[in-house]
This record gives sequence, structure tokens and C-alpha cells, in this order.
Amino acid sequence: MDVPAVPEKVDPDALTAVLDGRWARLKRDVRAQMSTEKFRDTIGLDVEAHRVQVLDQLRKLAETDRPALGFDAAYGGLSDVGGSVMSFEMLGYGDLSLMVKAGVQWGLFGGAVQLLGTSSHHEKYLRRIMNLDLLGCFAMTEHGHGSDVQHLHTTATYDPSAHEFVVHSPDPGATKEYIGNAARDGQLAVVFAQLITGGESRGVHAFLVPIRDDSGAAVSGVTIADCGVKAGLNGVDNGRLTFDQVRVPREALLNRFGDVAEDGTYTSPIESDGRRFFTMLGTLIRGRVSVGGSAGCATQRALTLAIRYGDQRRQFQRPEGDEVVILDYLGHQRKLLPALAKTYALHFAQEELVAALHDIAPDAPEEEQRELESRAAGLKAANTWHATATIQTAREACGGSGYLAENLLAGLKADTDVFTTFEGDNTVLLQLVAKGLLTQYKEHFEDLSPLATARFVAEQLVDTVKERSVALRFVERLTESDDASVLFDREWQQRLFEDREEHVLSGVANRLRRAASDPFGVFNSAQDHVLLAGRVHVDRLILDAFARAVDACPDPDAAALLSRLCDLYALSTIEADRAWFLEHGRISASRSKAVTAAVNALCGALRPHARTLVDGFAVPEQFLAAPMLNG
Amino acid sequence: MDVPAVPEKVDPDALTAVLDGRWARLKRDVRAQMSTEKFRDTIGLDVEAHRVQVLDQLRKLAETDRPALGFDAAYGGLSDVGGSVMSFEMLGYGDLSLMVKAGVQWGLFGGAVQLLGTSSHHEKYLRRIMNLDLLGCFAMTEHGHGSDVQHLHTTATYDPSAHEFVVHSPDPGATKEYIGNAARDGQLAVVFAQLITGGESRGVHAFLVPIRDDSGAAVSGVTIADCGVKAGLNGVDNGRLTFDQVRVPREALLNRFGDVAEDGTYTSPIESDGRRFFTMLGTLIRGRVSVGGSAGCATQRALTLAIRYGDQRRQFQRPEGDEVVILDYLGHQRKLLPALAKTYALHFAQEELVAALHDIAPDAPEEEQRELESRAAGLKAANTWHATATIQTAREACGGSGYLAENLLAGLKADTDVFTTFEGDNTVLLQLVAKGLLTQYKEHFEDLSPLATARFVAEQLVDTVKERSVALRFVERLTESDDASVLFDREWQQRLFEDREEHVLSGVANRLRRAASDPFGVFNSAQDHVLLAGRVHVDRLILDAFARAVDACPDPDAAALLSRLCDLYALSTIEADRAWFLEHGRISASRSKAVTAAVNALCGALRPHARTLVDGFAVPEQFLAAPMLNG
Repeated sequence: MDVPAVPEKVDPDALTAVLDGRWARLKRDVRAQMSTEKFRDTIGLDVEAHRVQVLDQLRKLAETDRPALGFDAAYGGLSDVGGSVMSFEMLGYGDLSLMVKAGVQWGLFGGAVQLLGTSSHHEKYLRRIMNLDLLGCFAMTEHGHGSDVQHLHTTATYDPSAHEFVVHSPDPGATKEYIGNAARDGQLAVVFAQLITGGESRGVHAFLVPIRDDSGAAVSGVTIADCGVKAGLNGVDNGRLTFDQVRVPREALLNRFGDVAEDGTYTSPIESDGRRFFTMLGTLIRGRVSVGGSAGCATQRALTLAIRYGDQRRQFQRPEGDEVVILDYLGHQRKLLPALAKTYALHFAQEELVAALHDIAPDAPEEEQRELESRAAGLKAANTWHATATIQTAREACGGSGYLAENLLAGLKADTDVFTTFEGDNTVLLQLVAKGLLTQYKEHFEDLSPLATARFVAEQLVDTVKERSVALRFVERLTESDDASVLFDREWQQRLFEDREEHVLSGVANRLRRAASDPFGVFNSAQDHVLLAGRVHVDRLILDAFARAVDACPDPDAAALLSRLCDLYALSTIEADRAWFLEHGRISASRSKAVTAAVNALCGALRPHARTLVDGFAVPEQFLAAPMLNG
Repeated sequence: MDVPAVPEKVDPDALTAVLDGRWARLKRDVRAQMSTEKFRDTIGLDVEAHRVQVLDQLRKLAETDRPALGFDAAYGGLSDVGGSVMSFEMLGYGDLSLMVKAGVQWGLFGGAVQLLGTSSHHEKYLRRIMNLDLLGCFAMTEHGHGSDVQHLHTTATYDPSAHEFVVHSPDPGATKEYIGNAARDGQLAVVFAQLITGGESRGVHAFLVPIRDDSGAAVSGVTIADCGVKAGLNGVDNGRLTFDQVRVPREALLNRFGDVAEDGTYTSPIESDGRRFFTMLGTLIRGRVSVGGSAGCATQRALTLAIRYGDQRRQFQRPEGDEVVILDYLGHQRKLLPALAKTYALHFAQEELVAALHDIAPDAPEEEQRELESRAAGLKAANTWHATATIQTAREACGGSGYLAENLLAGLKADTDVFTTFEGDNTVLLQLVAKGLLTQYKEHFEDLSPLATARFVAEQLVDTVKERSVALRFVERLTESDDASVLFDREWQQRLFEDREEHVLSGVANRLRRAASDPFGVFNSAQDHVLLAGRVHVDRLILDAFARAVDACPDPDAAALLSRLCDLYALSTIEADRAWFLEHGRISASRSKAVTAAVNALCGALRPHARTLVDGFAVPEQFLAAPMLNG
């Protein structure tokens, strides 16, 4: 199989320039600071020593102006949302406990105060949050409710006689669980609770509740427990919070989206409890975006380690006598190079996401906001699942060396493992994505009269015809050709992804249409189909972002190399799902085999550039100081 | 999709009886001992405390007669090879550091002395090894050579004037690496080294080399380093050994397969250095078998935890208001139930392997021995990859709870992670399996004259025709039928697996036939195909073993349940590889979709039995004492 030409030599700096993109200057600054001794991640610290070290590092970060990036200029902030997210993400190159601790303090805790609170909260707290005078927690998740936070059990009941809210955990399931900064350092918590006033529940709202006094002891009525040792991230002091009739003033309510007057009257700019809750959650997507991005950085680090190792480790002799460098084995390339291609692809999709988050107007239409949230959810799932799989593969690709803590992959694996299930469980997030895509079919679910149903079916038919007439026809035309070069045709790749997305989605819509009679049963029997719809949508977003990045790359050699890497992403993704394409007649059996051959050929063509491609990530060298790379 | 009937209620004890099989009594004894306080695995111990605890537990094991199972009756052993392997395997339910430490001491170190040594070694050491008076190491792997142990650099040069061997590490790559028992406890090591006598190298042999004196200090010339913190298994004291001209007497050579006379004359019952080396390695397969089995036990433990959690955890309300038990979601069933089916399947295949190892006659023909080794390699790879994937999934299926050390999955993940790359890297092992299968084509590789090539092609043709006339024709006939019930036809499932194996293997043989001109290039470009051949062969072994276990099950309800579970294993395996079956015309697109529907339907049918199925494993309850299961 012939692969389009790959340049002989590409400058890794040209790749770094493309990867760093719009916030390149900020990224250089972050790399410079992270390259100092203070930020080295230490192996084998015990839990307490690790927590102390991470808090020290956090204070070092607070000396820069980066914590201010995410906050309003009116309170000493720099109002650079994109820069703020990028500076969190980049911490993913180093000790991920620091990334999480910083994310809890400035992203979740500080973000909630800023985005759910109003000016009196901003005035009182934001500066102290930025400079770490005030350490805080984001107490949303409960023992009994993690994914389904709308049904939290913690209550905040307004007492009009005292002008106070009474925050309470009514049952063991209401205990706030896994709360970062709670076990050791936090002083104040943003607590999510069902607001009750005048005997009526108004849904989940956020309250500022002190949890420790100046001496560091738990305040009266608050019980704090330590979550203890975790698989990783042991530099973060996760804890449990239980409230026994804890009284806070009326002003403790973060009242941007709902307020309670002195007399207990509830008011809100948003009528529906559900919509209000999801609007509140929607303002908090930065955390989710940052987690996806830092998972990407951790993956880049793992791949840099594994590819450098594979590029120097030799094992087994050729018949000619010399020992083979293990990255010369097709099997080894197969483990690492498609993962490398996807890491680039995800990076570009993430860059676009952060830019969109940065650029969205405060008064953007709601559907634009929902689309952004959906994209954040989908890319968080894609990025973190990819991180878990790739870091695992990188560990295995380094054999026994990869298992020793000194070689850094063990810690990376353990620290990133929870990313797939925190800040939104990935499976739940993919469902959210699919749900968002289905809103175009929404009216049909709400009105299932025979007429509406008939109209729906008719529209479906039209859609199907339309679909066949555009993406699919294009795909078919090229499928029929025997010319394997079509595999490297970007338009063919993109149309194939697009067609799959359209087809899966309309199929799901058709199935869910029957949901009126037995909503849970119908939804549940289609759940794998729903998840597929979410996944293939995200796949398409990622490929499109990679294609745009290739088109925009100014250096012709770098662009040519990235174009082949984009081919590898597209074709290895098609290969992994080729059963679907075969089942639906999108590719023939011989084309399917040609896809596998093309992936192999691309692995061979890109192998000489593997080192350059990982060097392009520019992971600070102190995070790559693994003894296994010293021979 | 209709699933054949599943009984309403099955007694977990009936499943345990089937699972425990031939060594049921021994397994009961092991479970009883492991259920005592002493064997509880402790969370959050530091490295030294963990090592101390594991050594204590090892001494407790030494008080039983189980260490004696693997040794000859002549030296106080019990000559029960199968029982010995089973008793190692079962340790996989508990702290895996103990399993590994016991495996190093009695399996690898003791096994090498017994199987590579002769009566004087047995006389002198075996009793002391069994009762732990003598702790030892198995020093094979080197820093520079792990998978390719035939090319180790350590040398043992015979000095006829002193009647001694001089053991030496000539370069940093020759350092013995990851050696269990080396960092803290080991006194004597079996060191694998290139034997040199009369100026000639005779290939790798094993030597007994003292590494610590009675005070515990390293003996002169031996440098011992600690491998430090690892991802897991920190109760095992892995270390590095370097030898600087260390002298040992001539009798230190474990001389069953090669000996050196006083004057330096080398003799061996096996002429070829390569064949001798692989014969020596072949005697040591018990370790590989035990690792596969204990990976299975760890997987059973993880699934028991995750399925019990999924069977009680609720999240999100139905439209009717009650919260859904998460194992009722199809998506959750999909994560755990096919993995459960494969865990049963692998268990039965492992049982057959251990029985074959136990029953093989000492004078069995070489090809029978090779077949056993190949099966051990293949099942070790299948078991350990399945463990890594399933324990990961189990962790994710328990969300944040799964990430806390107290809930046991974090430790299981970390401890088992290295299983895929130690005792033989899985990728290398699968290649070994494929290589073994190709021996039937061997003569064609050795004689590539035009005549031989022509004959080969002709035979291939005959094979292909024959193949189509048996397995494939059967498959096709049933494929053409529209009746979905064929999916539940065991014979159809088995023929499909068999046909795939035959086809993939003959395809590989055809490709490798061209290897004469550029052996490495041809092999390497087919490496993914070679690995596939290994994998599909193992898949077939596993399905056949499961089918036999179902047939042999005396309890009709248990048999009916296991039969559906076997369907789920077969169909989810076909589903995962349905692209291959589609590409090769083995199933139609509509049949392929029916396979997916059948997997979903089986998940639904088996879901009420999920708890029973994991309880059947009878994992000792103290290893399931996760707080997350207390609500």
C-alpha cells in the first residue's frame, strides 16, 4: 500500500507552534515555571508529605498572575477564560494532584462563587480565593448521588425568624463525598443543597458554609472525615462533610439564579427548577473542559516516555545479528502510533473547544450555550477514556520498567484513572451528548398524536433520502472505486464519519419515538445505540478539528506530516469501527481490508518521525526524567 | 430476540462445585486458611511494613503442607503438581504480593532447583526451601534482556584450576532486574548465565549463587539494589543483582541438562544450545500457569465487588419515580456481564490446562510438551489481558467509590497490572503460540526450492478446499438461514471459531512462506496477522473448554444457566470480532446485527442471576469487605 509522501525531516518546534496555537505565550510561561525544581513530582511520598508538597506548589502558583486569569477584572482578575483553562490544563504535564487541587480551589470553588454568586460575594471573597488567603471546597457530590446531582439530599431550609438557612444532611446518603480540600485545608465550602423556603422545595442551590475555624478545627455541626488513601491523586485531601443543622446567614446563598427575601419569598429569573439547575451547572463547564485538557497533557507525557523508550530499547536479534529496536516492530507501532495520532486529534479538538468557551458572548443564545456544554461533555469523555487506554498501553509498552514508580508511568496511570468517572461519569456524559443531538427530534417526543407520528415518519423518510443523496452517495461513489488512494482523501474520511453520525442518530431517534408506552424500557433497550450516537458524533468533531489544524499549519513540512497523522487517526478510527461500516454497506469487505493495510503502511511511514512527533508536545524535561531512558 | 430458557433460581453452591472441579477439597482448605485474620490484605501500609507482613504470611503458608505439593515425595514433597498450581492460583483472591512472593520462593526458585538440578541439589536444598529455612531468588531477567532471555549477558566462566565458576555481570545491561526476594529477604539465587568453559560459550544455564550471608549483608562481589516503589505488589522485595567475578563451586551448576566435568569438559543430553535452553525453560511453565490462574482469581474478586455494588447502587429516577438499580441499565450490563462470561470461560480453560499439566507423563512426546507450553503461554496472555481490562472496568463501574483504596479495586488494579508483561510479555507469548501452530508448515520454510514451494501451494489449495468443505460449509448453511436461534447453537458457535482459526492460520502461513528473501521484513509486516492467529486459537480453546464444562455439569439448573453464559461468551467474542467475520463472508450484515441483539438479550436474561454467578466464585468474604457495599 502506497502512502502519500512524508517529508524526510520535520522540526519539532514547528509542531509545537501548531500545537500551542493561540495561547502559545502563556503556555511558554507555564512550561518555564513547571520546569523549576519546586514543581518536580516526587515519587514515594507518604500521603501527608504529598499533601504538604502540593499545597506548597499551589502557593507558588498563587504568586503568578495565572489564578487571576479566570476572574473578572473588577475584582483583580484578568478576564481571560481561555488562558485560565489552558493554564489548568498544562498542569497535567506534572503532578496531577496539583492540577486537581488548583482546579478545586480556583476553578470549582472560585468559579462557583464568581458564576453563581453576585457582587457582594465577589467583593468579599474573590481576591482572597485568588491569593489563597481563603481555601475552599466544592461540595456537590453526595454519597448517594453522584451522577444524579439534581436529586441531592442535603437541605438548606430558610428560617425567616433568624434570617438564616439551616444546612443539614438528613441521611447517611446525603454526606458530601470525595470533596477536594475538605480533609485537610479547606475553610469554606460551596455546598449544594435543596433550598426549602415556606415549606416548599425550590431545587438545588449553592450556599457558602464555613467548615473550619481559624485554628483548623471543624466548626460546630460540621463533621469532616478523610477519604483516606486513593488509587492516585494522594496529594489532594479529599474528604467527607456531614452537616447537622448548621446555620448560615441568608447572604450565604449564592443568589445569581435564585434568591430568598428576608421574609422567605423565593424569586428566580428562571421559572423551572430543572432548567435553573442545568443553567447553574452549565456555568461550571470550565472544570470539565480543564479535566479533558489535562488528561490530554498526561497522555502526551506518557506517550513521550513510551515512544522514547521504544525508540532506544532493543530486543531479539534479526537474522543478520543486530538487535531490533522495538519501535521497529509493527506490533509495537500498532500499540503506540494510532494512539499518538488520536492524541494529536484530541488536542486540536480541545483547542477549538477552549477557544469557543473563551469567545462565547455572555448573551449568546441558549442553544449555542447548550452546544458548547455538549461538546465539553463529549470531549471530556473522549479525552479521559483515551488517556486511560493510552497510559495503560504506554505502561505495557515499557514492560517491567514501566511498572517501576521511578519511570513515572505508574503514577500517571493511577492519578488519571479517576478522570473517566469524575467531573461527570463518561457514560452519563455521552448520553448527554446524544440527548443534545436529539433535541432536533424533540417536538416529536412531546406530541405523539397519530398525526405527529405520521409527520415524523415522513420527515424521517425525507431525511433518509436527503442523507443518501449527499454524504452517502459521495461515500458510495468512492467506495465502488478500487483505487486505494481514496483512503487518504480527507473529504472521503470526513464524509464517512458524517454519514455514520447521521445514520446512527436517525436510527436512535426512530427507536426512542416509541418511548411513550414504556419510557424506561424503550430507552434502556436502546442505550448502547444512544451511547454509540454520542461517540460517533464526538469522533466526527475530532476529525474535523484535526483536518482544520492541518489546513491552517503554515510550515509545509509540518503540515505534510500532520496530514499523514490525521490519515492515521481517521483510518484507525474507521478500522476500529469497520464492523459498523460493513454492516451498513458503507465499505466493502475488500475496502475494509485495505483500511487495515493502510493503517499498517501509515505506521511504517510515520515511525521515523515518532520521536519528532512526541518532542513536538514539548513536555517539560523534568517530567520525563525516567531512569529507563538512560539505557 | 428470544433467548433460550434460563432457570428461575440457581444455587450458587452448585456453581461453586462446577468451578472448583477436581481440586475442590484443596480449594476449600485454601479458602479456609485465607479467611483467617492473618491473610487479610491491609490498605495503606508503607513498603517496609507491607514486606514484613507478606513474609509473615508466607511463613504461615509454610506451616501447611501446600508448599510441599509441588515437590518430589523423595524429599518430603507430595508430588501433586496440579494441587500445587491451584494453591498458588487461589492466593490470587487475596493480597497478590503474597501470591507473587510464594510463587518466587516455591514455584520459580524451588522449581528451578528441582527441575534443573539433580539429586545432590535436591538433597541439600529442597526441604529448606519448603520450610523457608532458605529464601531464594530466580535471577533470570536482566536490565538489557527481558523477553529475549536466550541472549542474557551474565557469564559463568569455568576455572578448571579452582574447580569453580566465576559469575560476572560484564556490562550494566547484564544487571539482574526486578528479582523478587532480592531486595530484602533472599539468601541464595538461581542465576541464569551464559556458561563458558574451555573458551567456548554453551548457552544459558542456571547456577546457585549465595547473595546474602547469615547477617543479611550482601556477600562479597554481589551488589544488591532495591527496585523501589512499584505501581503495585509492594509487599514483594524486588531488587537488582550485579556480580563482580563471584566464585561458586562447580557443583553450583544446576546440571540436569548440561554439566561441566572437573577438567572443564562440557556434556549435555541435548545437543543444540537453543533446544536445550527451551527445554530448560519448558520445565518452568508452572509459574506461567499460576500467574494466569491467579489473574483469574483477582478478576473474580473484582467482578464480585463491582456486580454486588451494581446490584444495590441506585442512580436516576424512572418516570415512575423510583430510582433505577444501576445493573438494570443495559449499558452497565454490557460493561460487566460479557466480562463475567469470559471470566467463567477462562476459568474452565485454566482448569483443563492445570489438569493437563498434572497428568502429562514425564516421558510424554516432545510435541505434547510443546503443545502444553503453547497452551500455557496463550492462556496466560488471555487471562492477564482479561484481568487488566476487567479490573479497570470494575473500577470504573463503581465510580468514585472504586477509586478509594478502602474499596479494594484500586489495589487489585495496581497489583495485577504487571501480569501482562511479566512471566513472559503477552505479545511475545502470543507470537510463541502462533509459531507453535505453524510448525505444521515448518518443512516448507526450511526447503524453499521451487518444487517445495509448488507442493506447498498445492497443499494449501487442498487445505482450503477441505476447509470450505467442513467448518465453513457448516457455517454457511446456517448463515443462510434467517433463523436467529442458530446463534444459540453451540455447534455453530464452535465451528465459527474453528473456521476462523483455520483461515487465519493458513493465511499467515502463506504470507510467511515468502520470508526467505527478507525474513525480518516479511515477518514484521505480517506481525498483526501472526498475533491474530495466536489470539483466535486461544479463543477457540477457551470456548471449547466452556462447552465441555457445561456438558459435564451435573446440576440441570446450573447447567442451563452456564449454557446461556457460554452463549454470552461465544456471542460477545464474535461481536467483538464481527468485522473479521463480515470481511471474510462468514456472517451476513443482518446476522451480524442479530449477534449484537442477542448479546443484549442475553445480558437482560442473565442480569437476575448476576449476583448468583459471582457468588459462585466463593471469594472469601474478607476480601470483599468494601465499605461501599454497606450502602
